[in-house]
Amino acid sequence: MSDTVSKALLPAGLRDFLPPDAALEAHVVSGLMADFGAHGYERVKPPLIEFEENLLDGAGAATSKDTFRVMDPVSQRMMGLRADMTIQVARIATTRLAKAPRPLRLCYSGQVLRVKGTQLTPERQFTQAGLELIGSDSPAADAEVIALAAGALAALGVQGVSVDLNLPTLVPVLCDELELSPETQLRLRAALDQKDAAAVREMGDPVQDLFGELIRCSGEVDTVMERLGRLDLPQAAAQRRDRLKDVVALVRRLMPGLSLTVDAVENRGFEYHTGISFSIFAPGARGELARGGRYRAGTAKEKAVGCTVYVDTVMGVIAPPADRPRLLLPYGDRAQAAAWQSKGWITVAMLEDGIADPEAEARRQRCTHYVSNGQVRTVG
Amino acid sequence: MSDTVSKALLPAGLRDFLPPDAALEAHVVSGLMADFGAHGYERVKPPLIEFEENLLDGAGAATSKDTFRVMDPVSQRMMGLRADMTIQVARIATTRLAKAPRPLRLCYSGQVLRVKGTQLTPERQFTQAGLELIGSDSPAADAEVIALAAGALAALGVQGVSVDLNLPTLVPVLCDELELSPETQLRLRAALDQKDAAAVREMGDPVQDLFGELIRCSGEVDTVMERLGRLDLPQAAAQRRDRLKDVVALVRRLMPGLSLTVDAVENRGFEYHTGISFSIFAPGARGELARGGRYRAGTAKEKAVGCTVYVDTVMGVIAPPADRPRLLLPYGDRAQAAAWQSKGWITVAMLEDGIADPEAEARRQRCTHYVSNGQVRTVG
Repeated sequence: MSDTVSKALLPAGLRDFLPPDAALEAHVVSGLMADFGAHGYERVKPPLIEFEENLLDGAGAATSKDTFRVMDPVSQRMMGLRADMTIQVARIATTRLAKAPRPLRLCYSGQVLRVKGTQLTPERQFTQAGLELIGSDSPAADAEVIALAAGALAALGVQGVSVDLNLPTLVPVLCDELELSPETQLRLRAALDQKDAAAVREMGDPVQDLFGELIRCSGEVDTVMERLGRLDLPQAAAQRRDRLKDVVALVRRLMPGLSLTVDAVENRGFEYHTGISFSIFAPGARGELARGGRYRAGTAKEKAVGCTVYVDTVMGVIAPPADRPRLLLPYGDRAQAAAWQSKGWITVAMLEDGIADPEAEARRQRCTHYVSNGQVRTVG
Repeated sequence: MSDTVSKALLPAGLRDFLPPDAALEAHVVSGLMADFGAHGYERVKPPLIEFEENLLDGAGAATSKDTFRVMDPVSQRMMGLRADMTIQVARIATTRLAKAPRPLRLCYSGQVLRVKGTQLTPERQFTQAGLELIGSDSPAADAEVIALAAGALAALGVQGVSVDLNLPTLVPVLCDELELSPETQLRLRAALDQKDAAAVREMGDPVQDLFGELIRCSGEVDTVMERLGRLDLPQAAAQRRDRLKDVVALVRRLMPGLSLTVDAVENRGFEYHTGISFSIFAPGARGELARGGRYRAGTAKEKAVGCTVYVDTVMGVIAPPADRPRLLLPYGDRAQAAAWQSKGWITVAMLEDGIADPEAEARRQRCTHYVSNGQVRTVG
């Protein structure tokens, strides 16, 4: 359907989803929820607004500047309009569902808002969906969440799903074990973020050997895991590498064909993630389709792993469900409606009697079929 | 699952939907959307916030005191957090979809917020769903919307669905035709609202005859239509009665078993509705399940009829979908997962190896089935 009026009707970064986009979005969300649900993830739904201090607690602090505030006239306290749902789901898991058996599997979907868009993503309202697996530290939990998210996206028709695995705690742990000074750590971090191998070499021992190798640990999973395996890592760093190896093996078993890459020095999300983190990509997508990893949930700091799916981005890389045939039914004749609907057809009732040319009327109403002399015919 | 922490965590009137409520809500919404969609209603999704003046335009003005406001840092203009979606859908229909062929059938669902709850309904966030049929004045349009909303609720398992039909324009039209003074009209309206037949009789001619009869036109549809039919109404009022008769006949054809009542002097919603309006009830519900009627859409004042479904109220009167069997799968053994899931089962993976008593573990994880020696067994 055409867009006849200026979008200036709506504030910047906000938009109406028209047909067929709104239905496609619902299709993505219900597909994800059905897939997660089939694996034991139960749906929760936190409110759109809640007290600012709960919403922006702990890891939520990162969303503070993105969050609209409104005064609650009842309590006279400030409330925030959520910019992210994961903090809310962690709150539910660790408070209201504190006594539910572990591991606790939850999934969710809803709208989030942010105060301002960016140049790259001007949108200010997004559909977020996700799953959280709370109360297990097992590598099998990491693997389950990764494989489930990637599998659900593939099931929705996303072509060429790939997962990039990161170890955001590896570099800090190594820095500690090597007793690098804060200044050296800052220089090193900058060099690693820019993948600047020359700068790393210039830093001399003990940085140049280990990090010079680590910076090359980026790319196809088997190559990287072999390279990582050859490194002589101190104990804490070696444990993290071994865990990554375990998770990779488990993901492989769950999804043998999945394209996997590793970037051992990737740092994003470090403030939040406490172990393996990951991003899910597909060719042609505007950005990541999903992002997740290990974290600690709630004030109780429960071990958890989760994944957020960016539904709007997913919508950009899947084909909409095939158009269903639309049958224009004669005025007052609904006898056939249910039978056609049960075969997946859409039926559209004529609301006026005596329309002379039902085929022309069907075409006008974007129907693919109409009834003539009791027979269903295709619009020519 | 149990509620272990005080609800004081959330502002008054806001709540977390826990399992199984969040899934039940999604089930209601997807059922409604699927049903409306099968009848040609296409989904739209307006944003949660938009400029105050658009949101509170025309019929939206009624929601003004319920609407949270936030400043838009981009435009420096005030935005409102919607308290109702029908105004937004009418805006979409009459602006962005102004050139889409008529009749235009749209459906929608989303969250709405209001600043304060009431004693009766303390909630401040609701799930709204609905359908709008825009650009037709035919009685068949009224009947379609009524039958579709009632039918979708019945299909969701609501028992004893009944529709109360109202004619909010009848009394004002009669007052005009009888040239009653504003004072008399006010007294009459108060008497009718209280169904006070004695007060109506005391008002003498010409009020007492006509309105004394009209006030009795409330109840089972056949009785009321017969009574209305016997009234000697002036032309404009008679036209409205005849239209009601047409709509009743058409609804009967679409849903022969539907329980119908009529209240000819019911006044609620008059400010908004321009023709027949209706409310849908069911025994045991906290209030109306749905409400709708004729109105004029957008600044273009297009003829329209629509219906809003109160999803939270519907949830109170339907049985949740039957629990699906939950199968606890042994560690690392996912081979069977897809096969069981395709039969509608939920599979839950063990995340640790070497659990000695899989039946006890299945019970602990609220599973109904587990695997022992390669066989699926029921938890005893």
